[in-house]
Amino acid sequence: MEAKGLDSVCLSPGANLYYLTAFATEAFERLTVAFIPKANEPVLVVPKLDEQKALQHAAVENVIGFGDTEDPVAVLRTTLEKLHLETATVGVEDHMPFRTYSQLIEAAPNLRAMRASGILFQMRLRKSSEEVELLKRAGAIVDQGVKAAVETISAGITELEAASKVEYNLKKLGGEKVPFCVVLGGPNSALPHGSPSERQFRQGDLVVMDFSTTYHGYFADVTRMVSIGQPNSRQMEVFETVLSAEQSAVENVKAGKAAGEIDAVARGIIRGRGFGQYFVHRTGHGLGLEVHEKPEIVEGSKEILEPGMVFTVEPGIYLPGDFGARIEDDVVVTASGFELLTKSPRTLVVV
Amino acid sequence: MEAKGLDSVCLSPGANLYYLTAFATEAFERLTVAFIPKANEPVLVVPKLDEQKALQHAAVENVIGFGDTEDPVAVLRTTLEKLHLETATVGVEDHMPFRTYSQLIEAAPNLRAMRASGILFQMRLRKSSEEVELLKRAGAIVDQGVKAAVETISAGITELEAASKVEYNLKKLGGEKVPFCVVLGGPNSALPHGSPSERQFRQGDLVVMDFSTTYHGYFADVTRMVSIGQPNSRQMEVFETVLSAEQSAVENVKAGKAAGEIDAVARGIIRGRGFGQYFVHRTGHGLGLEVHEKPEIVEGSKEILEPGMVFTVEPGIYLPGDFGARIEDDVVVTASGFELLTKSPRTLVVV
Repeated sequence: MEAKGLDSVCLSPGANLYYLTAFATEAFERLTVAFIPKANEPVLVVPKLDEQKALQHAAVENVIGFGDTEDPVAVLRTTLEKLHLETATVGVEDHMPFRTYSQLIEAAPNLRAMRASGILFQMRLRKSSEEVELLKRAGAIVDQGVKAAVETISAGITELEAASKVEYNLKKLGGEKVPFCVVLGGPNSALPHGSPSERQFRQGDLVVMDFSTTYHGYFADVTRMVSIGQPNSRQMEVFETVLSAEQSAVENVKAGKAAGEIDAVARGIIRGRGFGQYFVHRTGHGLGLEVHEKPEIVEGSKEILEPGMVFTVEPGIYLPGDFGARIEDDVVVTASGFELLTKSPRTLVVV
Repeated sequence: MEAKGLDSVCLSPGANLYYLTAFATEAFERLTVAFIPKANEPVLVVPKLDEQKALQHAAVENVIGFGDTEDPVAVLRTTLEKLHLETATVGVEDHMPFRTYSQLIEAAPNLRAMRASGILFQMRLRKSSEEVELLKRAGAIVDQGVKAAVETISAGITELEAASKVEYNLKKLGGEKVPFCVVLGGPNSALPHGSPSERQFRQGDLVVMDFSTTYHGYFADVTRMVSIGQPNSRQMEVFETVLSAEQSAVENVKAGKAAGEIDAVARGIIRGRGFGQYFVHRTGHGLGLEVHEKPEIVEGSKEILEPGMVFTVEPGIYLPGDFGARIEDDVVVTASGFELLTKSPRTLVVV
């Protein structure tokens, strides 16, 4: 806060609030914020119906509950006055809803809100050994999920049917949540952000399976591929290019390197084989209490990798209207190199 | 827009964006916005990796894709200049992330953002016959889900096991998403916002099953009850009070009445039998592309019901530490009265 000139941080429901206060809540339409002032004790403002839960679980002594008939703007005004923050510079998160921002400014028109997700992410950037353990547990669940998932794929099944079986299995295996579970076949596999549809898998399809689960709030995120029947030579060429890009990128993970260097390894291999224009996203993203954290493994990034950083490596090639391929693992930077948190074989499984 | 003095609306990922552009996407960290200007054609700004999907599905001709190495603020600046919106008053949704708001203001420091969720909700308040058809399809799926759910309940099974089976069945039956699936037994049934736990069902439990699914994005939301073994007289008294409150409230739905009148019917019956203090929430909420929409069926509401409005009716009684009961159906207001979108028998099923 000092370095950024902030008098306080104002957190909305989400990972930072949970990380700093141990209070897990979901953002519904009612106001929920935590002020973490530089010069005062933290204060949690919650709807009355969450007050008991906050008093029980939150590592914050000052909990202010407000009822459905109270004006949240008035509650904010009183709270900001008590904390002497009426004209403060307050760091807020990127995901703070515009509604909350409006209420803050209505309560204190001279308050200045600044984006602070950057410094808040810094705080969660290097995972402790306890956090890495939880990430490994999440990784072990998705690894078992990959095995179960492969068995759900066959010609005639729809993407939606397959995805719901994969999700059911992940939960049975101990996954708390399945934030996304994407199974895409044939031309749909060329959509890097596609959703499962009613399309039935057919002979000759490449299938991309990309799913996630959490364990104690910590995410795992994995992508593996299946071929329905023997892949043709073009499919094999694309798959092997992605496989080679992913493996080489992972093997290059090392403290002291820049994040952009890891991207360059994957991108270099894909470009070298003539598919550069079809690799339309970054190589990976940080992983922790959120599925997208820092560091970003993106072209040109000078961010230096440090022990405890955790991220995905997931290059892909997408041939629009034809097919696509992606392989994804989760990696932690260690003192001596890297360790994989997901360990499923990367082979193209032929079913 | 005219009435609110808006030059444009700027939508973030969510129900309104889908409603107006047919583009379904999820909010990750990359900028995604749609401008719907009063005086120009709409424009959709999406990350490069969503560009194909947007071109395929969005009912918007102008799709601007930007790559991971481009500056989203520069993209916004060019877009706002093209649309002559640099100094416009722009309506934004309550859930617009602060990041997007900051980028808008950085791109156009003289642009003025105003909360517009209110008028955007209005637009979706009266469902078209096509929308009602989709809501009916969603209702038919949860009705079949109720049948399957009843079979998952027995002494010895945990709430979590039952919930994951119910969820799996809903997806198999054609539910796209299962936004929530709550199965609570014994004392847990007295928690109106409880989550399934490791608790095993026992003889003598009342079980509340409350779940949702979507069809083409439209929600169904249903609650039914099961008794493990014959219910005792206290359980029957509470169940029958809720049943009577729910049926009477539904049968009173009619265009021209105020939403508060429907709440009053349910609340009156529950109060009349001495359980008023244990009915701790509103009678229902609007339903459509979101699970909580307008109108609110809440005490004192003067909002007039109109044909095409769709909402839940779900009175409940919660005896803390003992047990609870709730029954919920989805209703559409018609020209002549109402029509149920969920049609499962409301009987207390004894297993």
